[in-house]
Amino acid sequence: MAMSSVNNGVNVQALLDAREALKDAPGATKFKWRASCKWQNGTLSQSSVQGFFGLGQEQQHKTETSFDADHPEIFASEDLGATPVEYVLVGLASCLTAGVAAVAENRGIKLRSVEADVEGSMDIQGILGMDSDVRNGYDDIKVTFKIDADASKKDIEALVAQSQKRSAVYDIVTNPTNVTVEVL
Amino acid sequence: MAMSSVNNGVNVQALLDAREALKDAPGATKFKWRASCKWQNGTLSQSSVQGFFGLGQEQQHKTETSFDADHPEIFASEDLGATPVEYVLVGLASCLTAGVAAVAENRGIKLRSVEADVEGSMDIQGILGMDSDVRNGYDDIKVTFKIDADASKKDIEALVAQSQKRSAVYDIVTNPTNVTVEVL
Repeated sequence: MAMSSVNNGVNVQALLDAREALKDAPGATKFKWRASCKWQNGTLSQSSVQGFFGLGQEQQHKTETSFDADHPEIFASEDLGATPVEYVLVGLASCLTAGVAAVAENRGIKLRSVEADVEGSMDIQGILGMDSDVRNGYDDIKVTFKIDADASKKDIEALVAQSQKRSAVYDIVTNPTNVTVEVL
Repeated sequence: MAMSSVNNGVNVQALLDAREALKDAPGATKFKWRASCKWQNGTLSQSSVQGFFGLGQEQQHKTETSFDADHPEIFASEDLGATPVEYVLVGLASCLTAGVAAVAENRGIKLRSVEADVEGSMDIQGILGMDSDVRNGYDDIKVTFKIDADASKKDIEALVAQSQKRSAVYDIVTNPTNVTVEVL
């Protein structure tokens, strides 16, 4: 398969081909993504990611990745990893950024650099149980893109808008997602 | 400060003391968490987490942490990191797990082990733009805890329920959170 001449490194043609092929195999589009978390001590946990389900069968990432999560010292923790709420920001930033690259490829826009700064505001009165009117999560998240590309400001803004429109994590964060918690 | 005799490693007394102290300094409870993402190539990005704002001033994690995010080979990507949607699961699992440890400490329950398996279901017809009625994000997330502790099943279930009630990431995922995206 010929790569496009733009080549941000995203194989858009393969994705477009996949979209066509999947039209005849609708069950194949049902994915399950997974993480397994083991408590270590205090607020420290280690999560691992490797297996997932998609295209009708079990799949594996090439390598297993492990992630330490903890709370900072100002919460009387050991600060041996990023906080859980920072992992959400990493997911959001990386999802929108991958989307920008994919949409740029599809639109024939060569990217030179893409940077996204994400900041989430939170009043910790919620998680500390000080005020039940204060939510536990972010009250607002701001994403700021700096993009250098062979395109007008307007076209670059349109790239970002399309990335938002197709972003899984943007959807998960901005819309309610059902979570069921079970204890075996 | 005396540690409690339970000692899951969570300094609950410090958190309770902080809650009291923060009542007289409400501005100190306003936090900002951050991640910075740089596109590498294709769908690969690298995000870093270090600085945040809280207790009225800039704060730093002890070390900067970097996270590679990518898409798997079945999406014609290089699979050089976990996917953005898996980072959300890591955040959810680690948030609920840290909460279980903290609540157990506060309730005098000694934990021996805590494991959480998280699975998010997604129909990729959404992100591929095949069907605009299919959402981009997870249609459902299931968290399964296995907890070994000096407590009854009922008390363990109550621990998990209280962790959900105070979890920042559980709130972010299950409720709508505003995200503003700007292009500089």
